Amino acid sequence: MSVLPYLTQARAPLTQTIPAIDEFGEIRSISIPAERPLTVYVDKRELVTLMTLGAQPELLVLGYLRNQRLVRSVDDIESITVDWDLGEGLMEGAGVAAVKTRSGIAEIEARTAKKVVTTGCGQGSIFGELLDEIDAVQLPPLSDARITQSQLYSVVNTIRLKETTYKSAGSVHACALFAVGVPAGDAPEILMFVEDVGRHNAIDTIAGWLWMQAPSQGSGADKLFYTTGRLTSEMVIKSAQMGVPLVVSRSGITQMGYQVAQALGLCTVGRATNRHFLCYSAAERLVLQAQAQAHAQPHV
Amino acid sequence: MSVLPYLTQARAPLTQTIPAIDEFGEIRSISIPAERPLTVYVDKRELVTLMTLGAQPELLVLGYLRNQRLVRSVDDIESITVDWDLGEGLMEGAGVAAVKTRSGIAEIEARTAKKVVTTGCGQGSIFGELLDEIDAVQLPPLSDARITQSQLYSVVNTIRLKETTYKSAGSVHACALFAVGVPAGDAPEILMFVEDVGRHNAIDTIAGWLWMQAPSQGSGADKLFYTTGRLTSEMVIKSAQMGVPLVVSRSGITQMGYQVAQALGLCTVGRATNRHFLCYSAAERLVLQAQAQAHAQPHV
Repeated sequence: MSVLPYLTQARAPLTQTIPAIDEFGEIRSISIPAERPLTVYVDKRELVTLMTLGAQPELLVLGYLRNQRLVRSVDDIESITVDWDLGEGLMEGAGVAAVKTRSGIAEIEARTAKKVVTTGCGQGSIFGELLDEIDAVQLPPLSDARITQSQLYSVVNTIRLKETTYKSAGSVHACALFAVGVPAGDAPEILMFVEDVGRHNAIDTIAGWLWMQAPSQGSGADKLFYTTGRLTSEMVIKSAQMGVPLVVSRSGITQMGYQVAQALGLCTVGRATNRHFLCYSAAERLVLQAQAQAHAQPHV
Repeated sequence: MSVLPYLTQARAPLTQTIPAIDEFGEIRSISIPAERPLTVYVDKRELVTLMTLGAQPELLVLGYLRNQRLVRSVDDIESITVDWDLGEGLMEGAGVAAVKTRSGIAEIEARTAKKVVTTGCGQGSIFGELLDEIDAVQLPPLSDARITQSQLYSVVNTIRLKETTYKSAGSVHACALFAVGVPAGDAPEILMFVEDVGRHNAIDTIAGWLWMQAPSQGSGADKLFYTTGRLTSEMVIKSAQMGVPLVVSRSGITQMGYQVAQALGLCTVGRATNRHFLCYSAAERLVLQAQAQAHAQPHV
């Protein structure tokens, strides 16, 4: 039986109020998002500094270790302990994440040596290995994991109604995970929602959350991943690595995101706002509905 | 006398046309931006893979080496040669950048070991050292490097009128550099404009361009940096490292971007669209004008 790691629940303010001067010379009080350096130590060895909003730092670190493929199983982690520093000056609000493994990470030096600066908001991942691993990804057959047009609209509307740091302070990206393994027509359930100053952080946090679920619920095959950010190769690859076959974005797609999604049969939907969208790949997974289209507004 | 490096001018298509299915089930032909892996070799040693649009890969690599502080002077580089591969599958369009130094990069192993995943679109930079170096940055006095409100509007309007990949394909960030060392009231001159799938790439390309100018024109002190992206710590720090005291963005600012800008006396202006904006820091550098305000629209 799997023993899940112990995670702290470190909290810190997500926004700060500052004065700003507008075009009329008037001072306005505005809210801006936090951006905190979180330095990760694995078994007391410094690994990386992540710049984060700080909403769910333990899940971020867990997902980072997973998506960098430094840890193969959640069982390998004993605990993740985050402390936000009360330092001063530029280090005010900085944090430390102490990761304790059960038996160390083999070859951590070699595995962190090669770097890829990913597009969207990169992190030094290991691009060559990454491409090799794409071939190993197995998504469910096109006929098995699908959503209807109404379900897609439900996803977009659920996001629209969220109370968010974006609404209060702007300048953050959001990611969410939905359960779509429900009878067609039922609204997908939102399982996890997270915002961060970098969307690579937000998707890593989702990956960390998914790992913390019991194995029976931990599969991505019946899930849908939503992001406000662009569908770059990084976002598509990370979705695929979670086993999630459906990805929806408010933004567009890049050429390599498109190539990877096509190669894997991963359904990508972009420009999803109101009742508009564009499906770029694996359109077999999206069941169009005349009824839903009747409510869509023509393009003007 | 300084000898500038030899740079190739490798070109590759910046956009691709793909079919997409809209909400009415109709197939639409849309344009998406390229996203190419560009693997950088320094003196035949693999350093990093950058995911890029590919507009100006040589300047990107030069600016990356500069901003990672792997190279202290442009004189240290003999040449940067970029070839776009004609491979197949997922590696179609991938590129290789071969950097030849005049006398090697000392301690390159140690200097690329520590990683920071920056917010916006990060790259593994060296955060601790970076904070140390911020103290060393010297921007011109507040009274010396200023722009007027009319000049700010001119900058925003110049960007608005550009023919861009963003207009045709979306999903890219733009950065630009303007000369503001002109008599007050004169329109700042746009010196360099670049788009990329990651804004960290775009600002690195600007830094590379600035390094290629003759030393007399290579200072950032009389320049203004524009970005469509958010003013995260990374963007503010990179502007400061170029010596540029004025930064304008279409988007907002994060807490750490704000802290760094305040500490350095770097003027940050965000939410700059039409005639609206918010000045977050070093407002002494922005000369408000009743005449310009008369044309601004009230907030609704």
